[in-house]
Order: sequence, then structure tokens, then C-alpha cells
Amino acid sequence: MLSNIRIVLVNTTHPGNIWATARSMKNMGLNQLYLVQPKFFPHQDATARAAGADDVLEKAKVVATLAEAIAGCKQVFGTSARKRSLPVAILNPRQAAQKAMRQENVAFVFGQERAGLSNDELLCCNYHVYIPTVDDFSSLNLAASVQVIAYELYINDFSKEAKLPYDEFATADEMALFYQHLQRTLIDINFLNHDNPQHVMRRLRRLFNRNQIEKTELNILRGILSSIGKTRG
Amino acid sequence: MLSNIRIVLVNTTHPGNIWATARSMKNMGLNQLYLVQPKFFPHQDATARAAGADDVLEKAKVVATLAEAIAGCKQVFGTSARKRSLPVAILNPRQAAQKAMRQENVAFVFGQERAGLSNDELLCCNYHVYIPTVDDFSSLNLAASVQVIAYELYINDFSKEAKLPYDEFATADEMALFYQHLQRTLIDINFLNHDNPQHVMRRLRRLFNRNQIEKTELNILRGILSSIGKTRG
Repeated sequence: MLSNIRIVLVNTTHPGNIWATARSMKNMGLNQLYLVQPKFFPHQDATARAAGADDVLEKAKVVATLAEAIAGCKQVFGTSARKRSLPVAILNPRQAAQKAMRQENVAFVFGQERAGLSNDELLCCNYHVYIPTVDDFSSLNLAASVQVIAYELYINDFSKEAKLPYDEFATADEMALFYQHLQRTLIDINFLNHDNPQHVMRRLRRLFNRNQIEKTELNILRGILSSIGKTRG
Repeated sequence: MLSNIRIVLVNTTHPGNIWATARSMKNMGLNQLYLVQPKFFPHQDATARAAGADDVLEKAKVVATLAEAIAGCKQVFGTSARKRSLPVAILNPRQAAQKAMRQENVAFVFGQERAGLSNDELLCCNYHVYIPTVDDFSSLNLAASVQVIAYELYINDFSKEAKLPYDEFATADEMALFYQHLQRTLIDINFLNHDNPQHVMRRLRRLFNRNQIEKTELNILRGILSSIGKTRG
């Protein structure tokens, strides 16, 4: 899966960001680097410091437009530190990595160092990825952004784990119905006090919300609650 | 909490890694930088490129030994790409960040670019943090390692969330007993078929294993199972 993911750098100005990207990619099992009109490439600094990731640089594709770089991709994720009022869904790096792992051909796009992605470039993307930071210093160094995304992709690569079927995440509505069902059941079996269920319910919400729950998992959990109801008659 | 965490760079040789570290720290709300015998510091490149993270560099403490850098710390996490046979517990970045957030004074220590931390330096640490990578290219660029750790610290900073009590994680033994109890209960309520419970149990294990379960959470889950048993008489 990782080998199908493209890392696209748009109009990169510092060679240092190109070698650092190549190294981060190689560490994390990525190897498809696309460079849209880089200012300097190839560049001796990038080659010298890629230190073992030379192969990623050697097979990097230099293209003239973002459209060429993402041609054939089914999902395109654009990273941006600026919040904008565009009709593009916003994901954090983990959510983006989990989505990316469910697709065949995926690209992550990173803008120019100072300007980031333009609105037009971001509108070529299906999702806008926002790396969480403190409010007053939100712009990550380009190579640092690539590292965070590459790391999340690597640790969310299910193909490294035992093969299990994966499916869509449950929606917020479905989770709300589950929590209602759970609370009702826990009151019925006298685990929760009818008057004050909130403390324990809050802990349970936190437990289930820490990771996105898949639809199949939610079906299992609701099936369990229904079975508890039935055995009580 | 983030403001209590020290980032310690030992014998850093490239000024670029110092400014990149300062930027990553500032993005992620960290501000205590310790430099143990850096080769060049201050250095004009580092200052020029810190771009907004100058304050982190200005208040960086330059010290002569690792012992000085970690003095007063209750937990010390040493990062290393090399697996070693030392009696130090190994954590991934997420586990390390979650542990770090439960302590007052914490340091994350990063070794020299080429050599990494020496065995003696790593033995000053309570934990060894290993950033997951592909097997055949496991050494991250220093600044990239700092970025991964800083990112995990930031997204695991519970003080940003609603205050809830946090406690220790359940152990593998406790989780094994929970899964036995869960399976027994699910068979009792006729949710699982006695002869072939494994498919559903595997999905449930994956759900609960995706995040470390805290002891308090496990107590709640086992309490629910016990209540189900009681209502059935």
C-alpha cells in the first residue's frame, strides 16, 4: 500500500527540503516522489545529504503542473497550515492516513515553503490535511510536515498487520445512537445508577472515541447490547 | 504540561538540526531546549532559519554533560534507531508521549547525528523510544526524529482536553483475563457460538488493542461483564 502513495512537492525552493523528504519517505516505506517545478533539482546538496535515500531522488519525477503529478490518483490530500473557507473536508494526519490506506492510488501534496498551497491547488484535492500545532505558530517546516505525514502513513499501514477486513468508519450519528443504547442497557443491568450515569458514560465515550470505530465494529457492539436485552427477556 | 518537557540534543554537529528542532518545538508547544556540547552554537545559519522560533533558541541551555541536561527530571526517554540488548524498556513514540504526559518533569534525549546515543547515555534513560521505520533504513534524520516526538507529545497533551483523571495502562495479563471474561459472557448471552467464537473475538481484540486501555477503563468493562452475569442470575 505504501508503495502506491505519491508524495508531491509543489515549487519547492530549498534543496534541503527535497533531501529531507526523500529520507523521511525511505524511512517510512514510501518511494514515489513527484516534484512540480522545483527551483533546484537535481542539486548537489540534495544528492549529498540524501544519505541512503538516493534511490528515491533518482526515480523522482519532475513535472510541470500539479495536475500531472496527481494524474490517476483516486484521492488527493493537500496539506495546509492555513485554515481557509474552501469546500474541502479537513482531516488530521491520522484520519488522512487511515483514509489513504483504504485506497489504491493516493497523493499527498505539499505547497511551496513560504506560500503553501494556493487555493486553486487546494481545490484540486479531495481533502485538506491540517497538522495540529499551537495557534500562534502553525506553519511547519516543509520537511517536518512530510515527516509527520510519512510517519502516520507508516504506522497506519494495515498491510503490515494480520490481514483483516477493513471498512468504513461509523458516523457521529451512529455513535450517538450507540451511546444511547449502551447507557440504556447499563441502567437495565443495574451497572449504572439511573440518576447519575454521566461519570462512567464519559469514561466509556472517551475509550471508544480515542480511535475511530468502524461500522462492522459498531454492529458487533450493538449486537452485544441487543443480546443482553434478549437474555433478560 | 508541554512546557515542562525538555528536548535534549547531545553533541549535535549540524546547525540545521538545531534550528529545525527549535521550529518543531515551537509548533508543538515545547520550549525547553537543552544542548549538550553542540559543535556549533550559536550559529548564524541556525539563527537565520529559526524563523519565528528564535525565542526557543535564545533561551536554550548549553550544558557540558547529559547528566546536567536531565538533572531534576523524573522520567527520561532516550530515542534510538538501533535495537540494543540493554535493560531499558522500549516504547513507540505514542506510548512514550502518553507516559510523558503523566509526569511532571520529563526529558526526551536525542543523540549525535551519525552515532546516536551511546550505550552509556541510553542507560541514563528510563525508556528507550524507537520510532517505527522500514527495517532496512531505520535511522531518521535528527530533526525528523524530534518532529515525530514533538508531534506525538502535542497530540497526546491531555491538558488541552477536558480534564479527566488518567491512570496507568492495563497490563497484558489483565487484558488476557478481560478477553476470557468477555468471551465467556458473550457465549452465555448467546451472542457468540460456543464452537466458533474466534472471528468476532478477533475483531473485538483489535478494537480494544488499537489504543492502550487504562486500568480504570478495564475495571469499568469488567464491572459491566459482572453485572451482565448477575442479572442472568
